Amino acid sequence: MAGQHLPVTRLEGVSREQFMQHLYPQRKPLVLEGIDLGPCTSKWTVDYLSQVGGKKEVKIHVAAVAQMDFIMLMTTCMLQKELYLLTSWSRGQLKRSIKNSLFQSHYHEQHIKDISSYGHQRALVERVMDNLLIQVTGKKRVVLFSPRDAQYLYLKGTKSEVLNIDNPDLAKYPLFSKARRYECSLEAGDVLFIPALWFHNVISEEFGVGVNIFWKHLPSECYDKTDTYGNKDPTAASRAAQILDRALKTLAELPEEYRDFYARRMVLHIQDKAYSKNSE
Amino acid sequence: MAGQHLPVTRLEGVSREQFMQHLYPQRKPLVLEGIDLGPCTSKWTVDYLSQVGGKKEVKIHVAAVAQMDFIMLMTTCMLQKELYLLTSWSRGQLKRSIKNSLFQSHYHEQHIKDISSYGHQRALVERVMDNLLIQVTGKKRVVLFSPRDAQYLYLKGTKSEVLNIDNPDLAKYPLFSKARRYECSLEAGDVLFIPALWFHNVISEEFGVGVNIFWKHLPSECYDKTDTYGNKDPTAASRAAQILDRALKTLAELPEEYRDFYARRMVLHIQDKAYSKNSE
Repeated sequence: MAGQHLPVTRLEGVSREQFMQHLYPQRKPLVLEGIDLGPCTSKWTVDYLSQVGGKKEVKIHVAAVAQMDFIMLMTTCMLQKELYLLTSWSRGQLKRSIKNSLFQSHYHEQHIKDISSYGHQRALVERVMDNLLIQVTGKKRVVLFSPRDAQYLYLKGTKSEVLNIDNPDLAKYPLFSKARRYECSLEAGDVLFIPALWFHNVISEEFGVGVNIFWKHLPSECYDKTDTYGNKDPTAASRAAQILDRALKTLAELPEEYRDFYARRMVLHIQDKAYSKNSE
Repeated sequence: MAGQHLPVTRLEGVSREQFMQHLYPQRKPLVLEGIDLGPCTSKWTVDYLSQVGGKKEVKIHVAAVAQMDFIMLMTTCMLQKELYLLTSWSRGQLKRSIKNSLFQSHYHEQHIKDISSYGHQRALVERVMDNLLIQVTGKKRVVLFSPRDAQYLYLKGTKSEVLNIDNPDLAKYPLFSKARRYECSLEAGDVLFIPALWFHNVISEEFGVGVNIFWKHLPSECYDKTDTYGNKDPTAASRAAQILDRALKTLAELPEEYRDFYARRMVLHIQDKAYSKNSE
């Protein structure tokens, strides 16, 4: 049934500097263990969060271009004191590191989105921003697929059509078995780095709280300005897709067998000109 | 070493009507046996041809838009009396069939190009026009590959980079073994239909004379007007390729990992929108 299964590399006690200089540039998923996250791991019970955040889903945005209401900001400041990584890596260091261009972003964006009950599973998606998924309390299993395996994932936009990734319908999705499956379990205190474009599927194995920190890896002007959550393609990619549609419209003037053949030639041309020559 | 080997279908005593109505629309290679080609099979010795055609390679053009010199025309008329197929299928019937749109072409084009000595092998190529290869005297072996297998043929323009197709360098061309190889032997009197876009590789196994009849399958305006021998892509395909290059230039603004990913997404889009849904 299944293709290649690979573990996500786990590293303990990685400093911010080690991550930034040696690990981050590799653009591979990575679980960081034993990072001091502050009092949040014990303090952030659902009761506590609903008390400070009200009844709605608690979202924290820290953005240079602020577009959030005052209550959110209050919550943000309060909770950040209790989650060291946000303060020391994200808010402090990530922002400072903008200047030395390790993170080229002009802002980063954080939000708590994962107050998840057991068994809650999301679709297999990619985002255009880098992501640190901080498992504050509870347990998650995360399955990841490389952007290089996009052709095996039956994509519709940024999502895979394959919903049941553990028991996929291989009659319908035969290529899915070719995708290399990376997998890790996150326990309270673990931090998972999900590089931009990596497909990930998250399932909660225990009730818990997670925090996602998103930030921009590319220069800010590369991104769609209306895109807060990293769901939209970089503007150059969207423009290229639009131009491609014009090419396909032209090709559609030809009868099927010719269209098929010249479409195959176009694919070969793209693979030759735009695919990375480095194999992973 | 080798992938799938398949014989080219051979049919005996096919009438023009059967070919036109049932076989031609299938767009598959086909060897027609036992067709009365006229006195040419015995008469067209090299001495004879050099006598009527002079010392240069004998080319015969029959075109609505005539662009040939007088001597050529004289040769054409003389030789056509001796090759019934040219007269009865090509010149007469094919032209007449324009009207009932089985051949949508406004002209067809013929030339003798194959006065070939033993062992002479050409590159693996495709042409944009349909082709009847008439083996008048001598023997040939022809290997064909479907346009659907273009991705396994290591194309450079209309030619394959794989020169030794019988013993290919699979370390250099690993995908070549996936291409389905069609093969046939042509003896004097055999006629091979090579549909447009089918890759073919011809090797002479005996000294002999062959005649190629090319004609346009698509409406005349689809073709490059400067293209006499069917080596150039249909104009819609050339335009689509130019537009695609603009899309790739836009994509090149992104760093490698992003370019690679969005290139893969473009490929998926082309496969979804422009590939034929009918498997062969």
